[in-house]
Amino acid sequence: MAKRNLFYAQSGGVTAAINATACGVIQTARANRRRIGTVLAGRNGILGALREELIDTGAESAKTIAALRHTPAGAFGSCRYKLKDPAVDDREYERLLAVFAAHDIGYFLYNGGGDSADTCLKVAQLAARHGYPLQAIHLPKTVDNDLPFTDCCPGFGSVAKYVAVSTREAGLDVASMCETSTKVFILEVMGRHAGWIAAAAGLAAARDGEPPHIILFPEIAFDRAKFLAGVERAVKRHGYCVVVASEAPNTRTALFSPMPAAPMPSATSSWAAWRRRSPP
Amino acid sequence: MAKRNLFYAQSGGVTAAINATACGVIQTARANRRRIGTVLAGRNGILGALREELIDTGAESAKTIAALRHTPAGAFGSCRYKLKDPAVDDREYERLLAVFAAHDIGYFLYNGGGDSADTCLKVAQLAARHGYPLQAIHLPKTVDNDLPFTDCCPGFGSVAKYVAVSTREAGLDVASMCETSTKVFILEVMGRHAGWIAAAAGLAAARDGEPPHIILFPEIAFDRAKFLAGVERAVKRHGYCVVVASEAPNTRTALFSPMPAAPMPSATSSWAAWRRRSPP
Repeated sequence: MAKRNLFYAQSGGVTAAINATACGVIQTARANRRRIGTVLAGRNGILGALREELIDTGAESAKTIAALRHTPAGAFGSCRYKLKDPAVDDREYERLLAVFAAHDIGYFLYNGGGDSADTCLKVAQLAARHGYPLQAIHLPKTVDNDLPFTDCCPGFGSVAKYVAVSTREAGLDVASMCETSTKVFILEVMGRHAGWIAAAAGLAAARDGEPPHIILFPEIAFDRAKFLAGVERAVKRHGYCVVVASEAPNTRTALFSPMPAAPMPSATSSWAAWRRRSPP
Repeated sequence: MAKRNLFYAQSGGVTAAINATACGVIQTARANRRRIGTVLAGRNGILGALREELIDTGAESAKTIAALRHTPAGAFGSCRYKLKDPAVDDREYERLLAVFAAHDIGYFLYNGGGDSADTCLKVAQLAARHGYPLQAIHLPKTVDNDLPFTDCCPGFGSVAKYVAVSTREAGLDVASMCETSTKVFILEVMGRHAGWIAAAAGLAAARDGEPPHIILFPEIAFDRAKFLAGVERAVKRHGYCVVVASEAPNTRTALFSPMPAAPMPSATSSWAAWRRRSPP
């Protein structure tokens, strides 16, 4: 089998693990030198291909490539750019293939979410129609963990850990002084349509009664009365309540808009009650 | 000198280092057993003294006390409670001294900010008036680093590191994809009246041109025209602009309220301009 080059690009938001995926691609290609030639990375994602701005990763030492595993942000840059639907305007897709052909790209590895997977498919179909031999492979990357057929997506693990640790840290702080200060703490997390990130906050609880006491999922309609009753119950039982809420638009509006007067416990009123029972 | 007991209490928000201070107090007392007896900690701060809820730290092993250095939140609890001005109502101060006398407290160590320092002074003055022998010592604790006569307050260092690291992380992420995504990123940090925390973000920059490009201090009046010009200059030079803003009310209003149309670069408009020059 003839040795051909590999084109790698990143798309969308940079996760904590995005460079680790790049590291895996480059190291694997180097371990298969008989089949894979140079790994070229797109500068700022797919724009790098469209503009023929290709970074020759072969110029980097094994040590530099290994360091990618722990390098923050996106080492080759990324972009938010969705290629035009080729059924409407196929110039961008044609341009991609022209650049691939010019650099003898036989492997196209695209690191991104659902749109990037779709781009991979369309590039593969176009290449097949032209009789251009190309392996187009999607590398899953989201923080939301919402890609179909993907059990646990690179990018999600780091976020899950961060959210769980933050929930635990904030919960301990709130517990330390809930008697006279904040009693209800809300942590809003990403995941507009998928509750994986919010659910990960549940890892913070090691024992029954530990925070988070309430998790609000985008998949479950927000019920104000049920929510307020849950908050009251937690405050009564534990002295405080930690809520983790996904950024789902409905939940957000319900939580962060001014609420009508409700029988919610507050530091001020319970402190006032305490003061009436006092002086200590 | 007769051996007398020590009362320790924490006040206000828990810092990352608040338990480390408690650890230092207890270990130092144990190293001076000939002069200092038991260390009693107030449950939930000064409320613990008013209610005579005292935690006997002598019951804890050396290992447990040493672990306080790395224990998050406030191990003995804390509270937001300012004692009444004794010139108006001295019952709370009298109660404090009564509890101190009942437990032979000769040392009162109070971990908190400016109000706690003031409480220490007032307790010391009252004790002197009554002829009760008491050493009242304030242990400085703020994240804001705004205590007089304190160069670098326990609690500030952790926040300074957190803010600098967060600025660097966010800056790298923004730089990775600023061409087609977020160009201007604002990190709001604490420090309503003191700019130390905002200033700490400056530690993120190792070289000229690195983020943060602009720091807004509460001590300097916000100048919208100057600010916008600075943002525009940074975007032109670096492709993006990272701003760190203190939570000073005026700055906050200026930054986070809807602005009138201004010649600010935006991802949308510059991308539209790029698209007009395209296809690539």
